[in-house]
Amino acid sequence: VRALIVGRGGAPALADAPRPAVPGECLIRVRAAGICGTDLQLLDGYADFAGVPGHEFVGEVEAAGDERGRSLIGRRVVGEINVGCGACASCTAGVKEHCPTRTVLGIVGRPGAFADYVSLPAANLHAVPDDMPDEAAVFVEPTAAACRILEQTRVGPSTRAAVLGDGRFGQLIAQTLKAAGAETLLVGRHPAKLAIAASLGVETAVAGSLPPDAARFDLVVDATGKPEGIAQAVALVRPRGVVVMKSTFHGEAALPTWPIVVHEVTLVGSRCGPFRPAIDLLARGAVRTAPLVSSVARLEDYQQAFAAARTSLKVIFRM
Amino acid sequence: VRALIVGRGGAPALADAPRPAVPGECLIRVRAAGICGTDLQLLDGYADFAGVPGHEFVGEVEAAGDERGRSLIGRRVVGEINVGCGACASCTAGVKEHCPTRTVLGIVGRPGAFADYVSLPAANLHAVPDDMPDEAAVFVEPTAAACRILEQTRVGPSTRAAVLGDGRFGQLIAQTLKAAGAETLLVGRHPAKLAIAASLGVETAVAGSLPPDAARFDLVVDATGKPEGIAQAVALVRPRGVVVMKSTFHGEAALPTWPIVVHEVTLVGSRCGPFRPAIDLLARGAVRTAPLVSSVARLEDYQQAFAAARTSLKVIFRM
Repeated sequence: VRALIVGRGGAPALADAPRPAVPGECLIRVRAAGICGTDLQLLDGYADFAGVPGHEFVGEVEAAGDERGRSLIGRRVVGEINVGCGACASCTAGVKEHCPTRTVLGIVGRPGAFADYVSLPAANLHAVPDDMPDEAAVFVEPTAAACRILEQTRVGPSTRAAVLGDGRFGQLIAQTLKAAGAETLLVGRHPAKLAIAASLGVETAVAGSLPPDAARFDLVVDATGKPEGIAQAVALVRPRGVVVMKSTFHGEAALPTWPIVVHEVTLVGSRCGPFRPAIDLLARGAVRTAPLVSSVARLEDYQQAFAAARTSLKVIFRM
Repeated sequence: VRALIVGRGGAPALADAPRPAVPGECLIRVRAAGICGTDLQLLDGYADFAGVPGHEFVGEVEAAGDERGRSLIGRRVVGEINVGCGACASCTAGVKEHCPTRTVLGIVGRPGAFADYVSLPAANLHAVPDDMPDEAAVFVEPTAAACRILEQTRVGPSTRAAVLGDGRFGQLIAQTLKAAGAETLLVGRHPAKLAIAASLGVETAVAGSLPPDAARFDLVVDATGKPEGIAQAVALVRPRGVVVMKSTFHGEAALPTWPIVVHEVTLVGSRCGPFRPAIDLLARGAVRTAPLVSSVARLEDYQQAFAAARTSLKVIFRM
């Protein structure tokens, strides 16, 4: 069976790999997997990555090592990507996302989903509705990460929100905040991507077109993926407002910090989120993904797929 | 009457100045005023300051422009430093600290307390207990700023807190967190200052002596006043912990932001705080200040006083 293996130098290659066989876990045949900004960063050397990338997937459970898993055999599932040790303070508190010795699918110490098969514990898996296409199900993981924002700060009809970054993740975040009732503005640099958001009913603005004293948003989410995103977010948030930080990138950001102190801004780092509300948002069409799919590629065409993902929205591998 | 006037070049000079006479406000004869880190930054060019600095004071009300003020005539008072327009959304919500056109005593558009007289609205003034010495009362304003932290994040006996910076402000913050029940560690670079904190019952550590993987604090307050403080705070806080940002300084901080995202850290900018709890902490001795007073100077000796404040703890002008 095949797996896309990235060497420490960052060059990927399609290789023959054994079927993963982790005692107690589920063996999942991958049906489709999405390329995320983090995958591109891993290819560029972020976190000194080596291994099989890919953490946004939908697949069918073929074998299981426990009873819970056996009930999923033959079902299409999506998977939470963090696997904790099960014994530390974080894990016993139910927060496997912050287990200090966790593995993370396709990111830390666990082969990812750009492969014919992956392995995950049954506790990480969620069955998807029969009428949800694979091309929508691969969006469950990033939509869950967008839903994490709703757990971290109050979002509702009185919230004026701005999302910085018109890429694949910013698009999902804007739709998620809008679904939670917020008056939401997506700010980006790419007219074609903003047009897609607008076609989905999201209000948009070109970055730089906002007046410099427009610090009027209750909530600003930085999904630019760029070092300059945080300072831009801080400049747009109202005093005592909230900036959610979603961008992970190599290196340091140069940040004037006195405005954060003087305006008493709260910045919140935000990573993985809950799958159930994400599946629900996608199932009821509150977050729409079909227009976000730029192309569907075969795994063997990974070079073109990664190249396309650098400039377009979501590129999906179809196994 | 005298006022210490700082020119835009940053050079202070003692000058004759008219008694301030603002219609509707109180005229206060300054009895004593403390030098704060912000004052030193203003002298160094922060915020392009020109005017009379000084915002930590105790004085006696001599005249008043309204009924509330007249009830304070002859009383010793301390004063909140923000004066709002009274009409904007912030002011009508009771948050004059974030009025976009506010003046700030000794900082923005309002002559400060390194002078024989200051003017403030009666609504900003708080009488101090008769048995609180002037040399303690000048600490009310910075202690209120420390109390702001207690409004922004939950602090109690289960909180493990670290305060970075053993200067005048860090010392007050550490005592304030301890008074709120937190297990508190003051981290600094100056053995003599740490020894003063220790003499007040505060646990201390020399910066750099903590193991690099000691990310175990629920709450870390950056009171270093330095660009490197935030990154140090982020390195010490536990996943999903809180970093309170108190340092205002010129320029930018170079900050690796991915740990904030990956560990879902919350950073909170924090500025001015409530005076009542601060007066209470000082009155009941939960925050002790006598050992923090390095020297008491006459206003005409301002050059030596500012020089001393750069290396010692609190330097107080006695008018």
